Amino acid sequence: MAGREIKVGLIGFGTIGTGVIKILHRHAAAIRERVGCAVRLARVVDLDLTTDRGIRVERRLLTTDARLVLDDPAIDIVIELIGGYEPARRFVLGALAAGKSVVTANKALLAVHGAEIFAEAERRKVDLGFEASVGGGIPIIRTLKEGLAGDRTRAIYGIVNGTSNYILSTMTEEGRPFAEVLQQAQRDGLAEADPTYDVEGIDAAHKLALLATLAFGVHARFPDVYTEGIRQIDPSDIAFARAFGYTIKLLAIAKDHGRSIETRVHPTMIPRSHVLAGVRGAYNAIYVQGEALGSSMYFGLGAGMMPTATAVVADVMEIARAIVRRSSARVPPLGRAWSALRRVSARPMGEITSEYYLRIMVLDRPGVLARLAGILGRKRISIASVIQQERRQGTTVPVVIRTHAAPERHLRRALQEITRLPAVKGKPVLLRIEDHLG
Amino acid sequence: MAGREIKVGLIGFGTIGTGVIKILHRHAAAIRERVGCAVRLARVVDLDLTTDRGIRVERRLLTTDARLVLDDPAIDIVIELIGGYEPARRFVLGALAAGKSVVTANKALLAVHGAEIFAEAERRKVDLGFEASVGGGIPIIRTLKEGLAGDRTRAIYGIVNGTSNYILSTMTEEGRPFAEVLQQAQRDGLAEADPTYDVEGIDAAHKLALLATLAFGVHARFPDVYTEGIRQIDPSDIAFARAFGYTIKLLAIAKDHGRSIETRVHPTMIPRSHVLAGVRGAYNAIYVQGEALGSSMYFGLGAGMMPTATAVVADVMEIARAIVRRSSARVPPLGRAWSALRRVSARPMGEITSEYYLRIMVLDRPGVLARLAGILGRKRISIASVIQQERRQGTTVPVVIRTHAAPERHLRRALQEITRLPAVKGKPVLLRIEDHLG
Repeated sequence: MAGREIKVGLIGFGTIGTGVIKILHRHAAAIRERVGCAVRLARVVDLDLTTDRGIRVERRLLTTDARLVLDDPAIDIVIELIGGYEPARRFVLGALAAGKSVVTANKALLAVHGAEIFAEAERRKVDLGFEASVGGGIPIIRTLKEGLAGDRTRAIYGIVNGTSNYILSTMTEEGRPFAEVLQQAQRDGLAEADPTYDVEGIDAAHKLALLATLAFGVHARFPDVYTEGIRQIDPSDIAFARAFGYTIKLLAIAKDHGRSIETRVHPTMIPRSHVLAGVRGAYNAIYVQGEALGSSMYFGLGAGMMPTATAVVADVMEIARAIVRRSSARVPPLGRAWSALRRVSARPMGEITSEYYLRIMVLDRPGVLARLAGILGRKRISIASVIQQERRQGTTVPVVIRTHAAPERHLRRALQEITRLPAVKGKPVLLRIEDHLG
Repeated sequence: MAGREIKVGLIGFGTIGTGVIKILHRHAAAIRERVGCAVRLARVVDLDLTTDRGIRVERRLLTTDARLVLDDPAIDIVIELIGGYEPARRFVLGALAAGKSVVTANKALLAVHGAEIFAEAERRKVDLGFEASVGGGIPIIRTLKEGLAGDRTRAIYGIVNGTSNYILSTMTEEGRPFAEVLQQAQRDGLAEADPTYDVEGIDAAHKLALLATLAFGVHARFPDVYTEGIRQIDPSDIAFARAFGYTIKLLAIAKDHGRSIETRVHPTMIPRSHVLAGVRGAYNAIYVQGEALGSSMYFGLGAGMMPTATAVVADVMEIARAIVRRSSARVPPLGRAWSALRRVSARPMGEITSEYYLRIMVLDRPGVLARLAGILGRKRISIASVIQQERRQGTTVPVVIRTHAAPERHLRRALQEITRLPAVKGKPVLLRIEDHLG
């Protein structure tokens, strides 16, 4: 194999692409030593060839035309970093069809078009690396695919969106409201101008679909992920959570029930003493419950140029090594054959069981709490504790209720009735509590 | 490859061996699906064939004679779980020499005889899996070897001994003394009858030598690891640490300085708000500082039958897959060739720089603190804060001093002088502080 080198074509010269080029240059010697041959950047594709990214790339490598990568038989590995569905999907499928291995950080693409893409990679007997798609530089994909392969994973609890974790942590630590912290995060470059994907839980849901697919060996579909964001969280909810001994995190939760799975992203109260509660700022963490292994957790920076670039480069190195050793497609992209994935149903949200936190704004007058308690009781929801703030007859005050475990459909029916009470003002806030993460 | 099966010989039918057999049986179908062929237990070697381990193993598989594994050409993979140096070393080398791949959980063996064993595995072009040797079921070996391969690791901070972490956590949470908590841990089966390896930091030092070798790509030698245990920690030290905002953990610390590395295991004060401080009970965690990745952490159960067995089985599966795919020795055991490891010197403990906590028991009389401060000042050690407990003239009281960063040799010289002062009773307690884990 002496003299052989692995040629890489990069599509997408944005932030992460820049980080990838930096690492490929800076660690060229270490990479060659570990891979067994040189890994060379052969082409960089982007529509914008003029912006200064602060690194030097030979002009002759730059092009706006992705076909110069896809159609070049000398290129072994294609890195796709443009994000979004199209043309990323076309480029990835084109590269696979041309017999090239692909590395991508595109969770949206894989969560939505995974069926087509994973099957194509298997059919072409090439590798598809997507470590960078979840958890930035945290090697969670490898961990689920190989490290935990000797166990059966039962549940996953992930903090997989750095922006929303940053916002919630800052709200918690500084007692400030959502809108204000979001604005500051946008000014500081920690949130996008359009923060929808992050604060509505969509980005986390994309990642959860991938994690559940890998962890359980099932077809976990993105549209089946129940998704709720953090916009409605009020500083008072955070304070009440604290009073109950909890912290609020936007959790991506997946549980394997055998014939069905549940996948959901929503703000969740977890015990303040739990190791996930200590994951602050823009950090991510994936907490995994295994049958034999018990609890394990993988923590790190879930985004950013350099952390994410390390994950891309780790994939490139593994694939390059496989090419050198002629052992490509040694492990299918999902750790098992696409055809071997279990078909499961998605458990509807009404069927899940949880403990709940309710904050109900009421016009304070005698008997209101009794009426709320009556409705909950008739729906067979048992109350664990109540906080009723100082009473000032005639004003609107929060009644905060923590319930024992109950099916969500019971709770929703109770909330419908509660919302119709004349004393109740506005929409009650409902948060789920996970007390038994293990 | 249809019809092919991978045959495994297990040497050591103790706790972890029992767990391995359980998983190989229970998950046989899932393992076959992931590996691409069946993995069959072909032989179990142990000197004790009569004890009931609570699982059924065909009598004809059991033997006391390891040669029936080492000399059987049908056996592809040998699992070594007897621990200790000999005969484990002989068995592992024998299996490798016979062209078999090996899986082991034996950190002591690899830390002390690694040079010989890793080189032999490379020479024979077989695989050597040792995921179970550090962090039980936490896939930290894979992570350092492949997941973080695209980055340069700068430092590692590990809680890698569950027994000592359990003891320190319990002392911290319940305010009880070391001896009492150790005794209870022994009664509960959480500490060995002879706890030396665990509480003196030796087990952690074995693991650290392996982690540093992998993470930095160097020859990190076990005898070079500075090792200090937790016996001298008093509940009062834990209380003072708390007053300063710290928690005490037995940390295994490795830092890469380029031409030299530092490796040390000792009780360490870390900020109470740090994510490592939340690692309680028998849990382990390895906190990694990377150049590009920044901080990441890997958390889970570092010991126990089933967690450790999952790591053994994950290695067996990966190696079995390589045999099926004819891609054995695709990655050398340490992620790079043995010959490519950097030769580095070990930085002597006197040369490391740290902040320090000192608890000095003094006969309380006027001027003692001034004398202590004078000695520290002359050795150029600057004091960050002091706690002097209620003064009762003529009694022995603790003076607690937190220093700014200083070279350890300065501190040791100061302590020699301090110990000689007539007012100082007993040996001062010295603990290192890590304030900047990132």
